[in-house]
Amino acid sequence: MRIGVVAPSTPIERQVADRVTALAAEHHPDVEIVFHPQCFVSHKHFAGTDAERAAAFLEIANDPAFDALWHARGGYGSNRIAEAVVERLSAAARRKSYLGYSDAGFVLAALYRAGFERAVHCPMPADIKRDGGEAAVLRVLAWLVGGREGLEPGPDGRTPAAAFNITVLSHLLGTAIEPDLAGHVLMLEDVSEHSYRTDRALFHITSSPNVRGVAGIRLGRCSLVPENDPDFGETEAEIARFWCDRAGIPFLGAADIGHDAENKIVPFGRS
Amino acid sequence: MRIGVVAPSTPIERQVADRVTALAAEHHPDVEIVFHPQCFVSHKHFAGTDAERAAAFLEIANDPAFDALWHARGGYGSNRIAEAVVERLSAAARRKSYLGYSDAGFVLAALYRAGFERAVHCPMPADIKRDGGEAAVLRVLAWLVGGREGLEPGPDGRTPAAAFNITVLSHLLGTAIEPDLAGHVLMLEDVSEHSYRTDRALFHITSSPNVRGVAGIRLGRCSLVPENDPDFGETEAEIARFWCDRAGIPFLGAADIGHDAENKIVPFGRS
Repeated sequence: MRIGVVAPSTPIERQVADRVTALAAEHHPDVEIVFHPQCFVSHKHFAGTDAERAAAFLEIANDPAFDALWHARGGYGSNRIAEAVVERLSAAARRKSYLGYSDAGFVLAALYRAGFERAVHCPMPADIKRDGGEAAVLRVLAWLVGGREGLEPGPDGRTPAAAFNITVLSHLLGTAIEPDLAGHVLMLEDVSEHSYRTDRALFHITSSPNVRGVAGIRLGRCSLVPENDPDFGETEAEIARFWCDRAGIPFLGAADIGHDAENKIVPFGRS
Repeated sequence: MRIGVVAPSTPIERQVADRVTALAAEHHPDVEIVFHPQCFVSHKHFAGTDAERAAAFLEIANDPAFDALWHARGGYGSNRIAEAVVERLSAAARRKSYLGYSDAGFVLAALYRAGFERAVHCPMPADIKRDGGEAAVLRVLAWLVGGREGLEPGPDGRTPAAAFNITVLSHLLGTAIEPDLAGHVLMLEDVSEHSYRTDRALFHITSSPNVRGVAGIRLGRCSLVPENDPDFGETEAEIARFWCDRAGIPFLGAADIGHDAENKIVPFGRS
């Protein structure tokens, strides 16, 4: 098992790479993790220019020697290259797994729309910095080498699933990277967004004809919500239920995903 | 000239109403401004429940004794009632002007989509609290009574125009209140958004097939931009030009609109 790590959004510190490499060596000596040097490049807000980030992504994705491409972290920026890189992927790229969440959702969406079968919403190397973050990293590695633990599947394991950050999904609807979500259990999570922003984003998301075709919505954790002034007066679950009810979308309760070490694995499509 | 003020988003203080009423009495004794009591109601985040805000809007909009409906202020919340109120408007409502900007853009969009001919992006009563805010309020009153000053028209005065807050427009694309913007000069502005958020929203907006049909985009002011860490390294005008170039949309330079006292008047459609 050979995993290539790239950073289509923002850069990571070398210490993150060192810790993840050491953890993998200890628990999974059969797994080789290669951090592309682009992970540590800094250009304005991003981990390199759009061209540098796209080139690194394509280098790993199109190399048949890698079994998986792992997003180093989220942040912001993968939307700027997602459409372009997916257009340039080879047949070798189709056999690979693509791992990440949060801003990486732009890339997962583009891949899933293009028919790639192994887009996976799951923890990333930078999650090792969280409390209990080693467990998040190990969850992904254990699943990649064939384990069946750590999954957050659809309600019956047969309904296809997809998972997104709320703000990311809101910003990709109507673009060339929007995937068909018909019949999917759609899991949503967010971090550091005011409740009124989540309310607005869920208005937008649940107004989408595409999203209105999902089997249902499950809400992951919305963490680090800044103080709303005045208090919004509703929890994120109440907000999600409100918009689901308005849109005629079944609200299916909680999902065990979010910006934290507990974040479970959601393979897009059928698990 | 009789103007009714309602608050489809968040409430205003009575002092705002008193100051605007006094200013109008001094400069335009022919203008009567009626602040609906709903403007001062507070319910959680909003100026009353959705039902209360919708009822107040319809009361003013469907009353033939009013010539204009003025949004008291922005904030957040008009998206929750926009579609429903427009469906319940009478013939009398079609002869009225609808005034506001920022969050009120959700209502202006819904009205314009429904063929209302007098949706107007312009200052609101709450703008009187800004430095120089009395001029903003007087700009609207003078234009309403027949003046031709204070307009920010399309480049030739014949091309139809529309103006939106960037974040608001991003959140109404793909919904039942999205208006047809084909051939319009689209003016955009925002406030209190990190540069990376504006970049992401303009990715979304300029990816829209509807927006790709505009005659061009002009950028108003993006003010009170919080510090980006790291520095985003591009101005909002550079960001707008980047996304216009990527999308094949003509970037037409600056527009004199924004969250400030200079905010000019943009009647939707042909001015």
